[in-house]
Amino acid sequence: MLKKIDHLGIAVPNLEEARRFYEQVLGLECHGVQEVADQKVRTAFYEVGEVHLELLEPTAPDSPIAKYLEKNPAGGIHHVAFAVDNVQAELTEFEGKGVRLIDKAPRPGANNKLIGFLHPKSTLGVLTELCMDDPSKK
Amino acid sequence: MLKKIDHLGIAVPNLEEARRFYEQVLGLECHGVQEVADQKVRTAFYEVGEVHLELLEPTAPDSPIAKYLEKNPAGGIHHVAFAVDNVQAELTEFEGKGVRLIDKAPRPGANNKLIGFLHPKSTLGVLTELCMDDPSKK
Repeated sequence: MLKKIDHLGIAVPNLEEARRFYEQVLGLECHGVQEVADQKVRTAFYEVGEVHLELLEPTAPDSPIAKYLEKNPAGGIHHVAFAVDNVQAELTEFEGKGVRLIDKAPRPGANNKLIGFLHPKSTLGVLTELCMDDPSKK
Repeated sequence: MLKKIDHLGIAVPNLEEARRFYEQVLGLECHGVQEVADQKVRTAFYEVGEVHLELLEPTAPDSPIAKYLEKNPAGGIHHVAFAVDNVQAELTEFEGKGVRLIDKAPRPGANNKLIGFLHPKSTLGVLTELCMDDPSKK
């Protein structure tokens, strides 16, 4: 079951410029900046209501975010992440319903989360992440 | 002030096919289907936590959603809408901060809302809507 939207992943060409916009123009408070080496991104986190916004700047040309920015140079919403109770169980259930998966098993994401992605070919163009707090990190 | 994400506008090439996915695969409940003649779209509404998902199928080739689908044929996240207390006041404040506006004044949206769009050229590629309940519709 999808419990809520945990975060939106937003691709940005330049994290410092994006931070100025999100903080000085939109008036949001930054809750942290983090480099996720695994995904070759630098991120900055914000919160609006119950949803986090995760700004994503690529740190390498072969980062998935770099590929997104090739198609959308100004940036844009890269993915939506839903909070679930059990990522593995949901991945298995979605696969059983014919959904193509990017991740067959959960893997570590930013902020001590376990994450798994569904393939946008199966989700009407919306790159979709499932996530939960990693129980081993508590 | 941005209070929360009110909804995500999601462009879909075919509303019936998209409804099957959101209902039978994602397991969400449809809260209504509506045609918004002004914006040349048919919409279906869902809710996940405090955020609504608004599926948008174009009803005419010159619909903004049709133009989005030309670039993204599979569909995708078309816009993000933030709930605010006063759309006009926020539009004026954003314009004062140098943000380019699509709407200089609020206009009626779906579900008895007043809405106003910021231009994606000023919002790092993310088409951004501000919305509030229309006080004249209460």
